[in-house]
Amino acid sequence: MHRVHNFSAGPAALPLSVLEKMQAELLDWQGRGYSVMEMGHRTPMFREIVDQSERDLRELMHIPKDYSVLFLPGGARVQFAMLPMNLSANYPCIDFIETGFWSQTAIAEAKRYANVNIVASSKQDHYSYIPARDTWQLNPNAAYCYYTANETIEGVEFYDIPDVGDIPLVCDMTSNILARPIEVSRFGVIFAGAQKNAGIAGLTLVIIRNDLLQRQKLPHTPSVFDYALEAEKSSLLITPPTFSWYVTSLVLNWLKEQGGLEAIAKINQQKSDLLYQIIDEYDCYTNPIQKQCRSRSNVVFRLANAELEHQFLQQAEARDLFFLKGHAVSGGIRASLYNAVPLETVQILAEFMREFANTIG
Amino acid sequence: MHRVHNFSAGPAALPLSVLEKMQAELLDWQGRGYSVMEMGHRTPMFREIVDQSERDLRELMHIPKDYSVLFLPGGARVQFAMLPMNLSANYPCIDFIETGFWSQTAIAEAKRYANVNIVASSKQDHYSYIPARDTWQLNPNAAYCYYTANETIEGVEFYDIPDVGDIPLVCDMTSNILARPIEVSRFGVIFAGAQKNAGIAGLTLVIIRNDLLQRQKLPHTPSVFDYALEAEKSSLLITPPTFSWYVTSLVLNWLKEQGGLEAIAKINQQKSDLLYQIIDEYDCYTNPIQKQCRSRSNVVFRLANAELEHQFLQQAEARDLFFLKGHAVSGGIRASLYNAVPLETVQILAEFMREFANTIG
Repeated sequence: MHRVHNFSAGPAALPLSVLEKMQAELLDWQGRGYSVMEMGHRTPMFREIVDQSERDLRELMHIPKDYSVLFLPGGARVQFAMLPMNLSANYPCIDFIETGFWSQTAIAEAKRYANVNIVASSKQDHYSYIPARDTWQLNPNAAYCYYTANETIEGVEFYDIPDVGDIPLVCDMTSNILARPIEVSRFGVIFAGAQKNAGIAGLTLVIIRNDLLQRQKLPHTPSVFDYALEAEKSSLLITPPTFSWYVTSLVLNWLKEQGGLEAIAKINQQKSDLLYQIIDEYDCYTNPIQKQCRSRSNVVFRLANAELEHQFLQQAEARDLFFLKGHAVSGGIRASLYNAVPLETVQILAEFMREFANTIG
Repeated sequence: MHRVHNFSAGPAALPLSVLEKMQAELLDWQGRGYSVMEMGHRTPMFREIVDQSERDLRELMHIPKDYSVLFLPGGARVQFAMLPMNLSANYPCIDFIETGFWSQTAIAEAKRYANVNIVASSKQDHYSYIPARDTWQLNPNAAYCYYTANETIEGVEFYDIPDVGDIPLVCDMTSNILARPIEVSRFGVIFAGAQKNAGIAGLTLVIIRNDLLQRQKLPHTPSVFDYALEAEKSSLLITPPTFSWYVTSLVLNWLKEQGGLEAIAKINQQKSDLLYQIIDEYDCYTNPIQKQCRSRSNVVFRLANAELEHQFLQQAEARDLFFLKGHAVSGGIRASLYNAVPLETVQILAEFMREFANTIG
């Protein structure tokens, strides 16, 4: 069996041991004589997966009791509509921090449901930094304040949780959830598509403070978009993506085996430090992001021109270093360093980057 | 390896060869060095899956060119809101045929968006038949006429496509899509959750006549609910459930290998005939559904009392006959006979049913 070094931005690499477990029990799950994909979502067996994954997520993230944990179908983008539909009725506006492609996309969707107050934006500077907190013009009556913890395309990350007072803080944590410990009690809602750090595509994790479940919904909110209803039904209102949920349960278990978020955070820090060190050391690599908010999940860099970037990608693939091409929106190179990417894999990329820099010297 | 006889109503049994293929290439898909779950949905490799699954579905179902084929995230229940949001604006009502739990649930959701005109219902008779076409009071200006081709819980199936004139016919085909050839051109929209006959949970197939994509949406329709936008984006507006999509592509390929829908239809007919024959032969089994609309996907029957049904299920499991318990809503016994359930498996159940009847008889 041949396995490449996988730097995909998402759907992304999975831990090898998780894949091996999946493979081993694919036809005969738990010795029961059927696949985990081939049983009803209302069986006691699937219910065990549901309950265990919630327990593990609560344990890993230290989620307080007054928060509900939902495992919802569809991608994180579903939340761009679901949030305003559930939380913005009877409020004058939603506050947004605009720091890249994903917050911008969330803003566009929210505008269809509510007044949007862009309290800070780095758009005019190509999203190369996070506007300083003291420049933000928050509306104290806003339904919530929304930000994107890590902008996957530009490679910009909030290192700290912004203080927004009593306004519920809503965070798209798709590309850095479970990458390190965070203080959940600082948030109103955290959501994350599973396909980067928490499993495969098809499932979105939502952690929501229970008082927010009481808010009035917009009149046309579909049942399948109703947080309170999903919380009441343990996220089983509709047939959920059962296999995706199972993979998430395996990934959460793997994270516990690694020593939890404190342990994985140390490795993640080493991984991104290694690449930024090289980027800063060699003139041929450039990264336009301010150092205090460079993404630890997605290390984005450029070479002098498209031809060199093409050569870089080609030579990388020849060494089994895959999916390093930047997003179509931004171009350039991007190495995504989610939890399942081992330090050794990043060391191999680092070594190649040094060699390539020396070659083009 | 141990495999039971799986009669699950959904998520349901998969063809063994499909599971084996999945398992074989789970860590190293197409010899590329990564799993099919571990690559971006915008890669040329995933695009091949997208294109091939659409081609195969079109070929298997003879879908005319003026229809779009969508592969949407989430369960079929998402469509209960998506349909009225996309199709009912500026129309006086939606016509519904109420024949069981699922049409009833679709009606409840549609009422939140439009006037609902229940043109026929068998509710008062416990959904034991399909109201005769000549009793239906259709509204010629209805946005569309909606029906559920097979009611999974009650075990009631339309054997023919109802003639509703020029009103677009919308059909929930979740539990009998791909079970036999159908005339797609008779429909405005066909939709089906994948987890019964077309793969695993997490993906919904939507076949929609292109003129319907032009209809005005309700103002609060989320982007991810917009059929026209999804058609324009080849169902890649959001990160789709890539693994579910891959499984669907394998199932469609398997169906082609079986000889397509004509061939599978013959086997399906034999499967349900076998069980209904026994139900009719032995007094201990009862099925309340009129013979001309007994479901070929879900054979539902009762024994004289709950104690006997419990015994039946226990003895069945002892013979590796699994997931025969009826839905919580209806109780009783239910054998789901989707495409992946082999004739031999149904023969083993049939044999057990004869023996059980003789034992208690």
